[in-house]
Amino acid sequence: MASQTDPRYLRSRAAILDAARELLLEHGPTAVTHAQVSERAGVGRATVYRHWPRSDQLLSEAMTTVPMSFFSTPTIPVRDWMRTELTKMARQLEHDAVRAVATTLANTALWDTNMDARRERFASALAERLAAALDDAEKRGEIALRTDPRSAAALAIGPLHYRSTIEHGAIDADLVEAAINAVGTWR
Amino acid sequence: MASQTDPRYLRSRAAILDAARELLLEHGPTAVTHAQVSERAGVGRATVYRHWPRSDQLLSEAMTTVPMSFFSTPTIPVRDWMRTELTKMARQLEHDAVRAVATTLANTALWDTNMDARRERFASALAERLAAALDDAEKRGEIALRTDPRSAAALAIGPLHYRSTIEHGAIDADLVEAAINAVGTWR
Repeated sequence: MASQTDPRYLRSRAAILDAARELLLEHGPTAVTHAQVSERAGVGRATVYRHWPRSDQLLSEAMTTVPMSFFSTPTIPVRDWMRTELTKMARQLEHDAVRAVATTLANTALWDTNMDARRERFASALAERLAAALDDAEKRGEIALRTDPRSAAALAIGPLHYRSTIEHGAIDADLVEAAINAVGTWR
Repeated sequence: MASQTDPRYLRSRAAILDAARELLLEHGPTAVTHAQVSERAGVGRATVYRHWPRSDQLLSEAMTTVPMSFFSTPTIPVRDWMRTELTKMARQLEHDAVRAVATTLANTALWDTNMDARRERFASALAERLAAALDDAEKRGEIALRTDPRSAAALAIGPLHYRSTIEHGAIDADLVEAAINAVGTWR
């Protein structure tokens, strides 16, 4: 097998991942098969199998090539930071690629332990920083939270996620503001 | 072709839908293929093709056989009705079958117009009755909503949906209560 730093290995690896991501975005996760990826990438099927023996591994890795930023380091006042971050999340959730990755993750995680581990990391990355920022804000007296910090984070993230992935609607500034106010009483 | 009321037609149709639903719940939507459904249902593959020429049609119809209740007719006070209904929704979202259907819908809708139409009906069935009940409650002075009624519905449903499908966590009574209080100020 070629060395992992061999330029030919790296080129074919990149071409395969690009093809897999394109197929996911155009036709959904079922289109990410060895046959279709190999054809689109212009790489022999044996090469695809060598890099990713199973198509779910290929799908999983292709999903990581869609950039998804999470909450940045909190700043004070937390309410302003939260507005900036939720607005950024709202803009992200308007991208078909982000919706494709988020819903594929939620769906495939139910049957695939590798995807479920990714879903768990995704959920933690989404909620933990916000939960910690809200917890600190409460300790500083910026807000009286309606519930525990992790559930408060779900009160803010949940409506945006639901509006985008289930309602397929736009997340406007009003919904962002309502989500900020939903977590508790700001002082 | 057999008549649509022919007992043999109805029996094979039911066996096919049962097999498709089982395959969806055990292995995910990609397992719902003519070959696997035919084998599990003990029905010839030609019969499966005759009823459902495309496997996505079969998946879509099998999904409707998973019972999912929606909000019942509102009663007053709306706050108590909402607690009952959101608690019912929370118990539903704990079922793997309901999670399988909800996440398959959100995912496949991105690439399949038939599934997208189902997603739209599902989203409307979920949110419209709650939105109307909240609108009426506001008119009666039971609550001052934080935002427009449809977005207020998303503030309540979103966190439950997110906790279940992304965080894979339990929806406890605290989260239900927080979701009720998130929609506005109850009088």
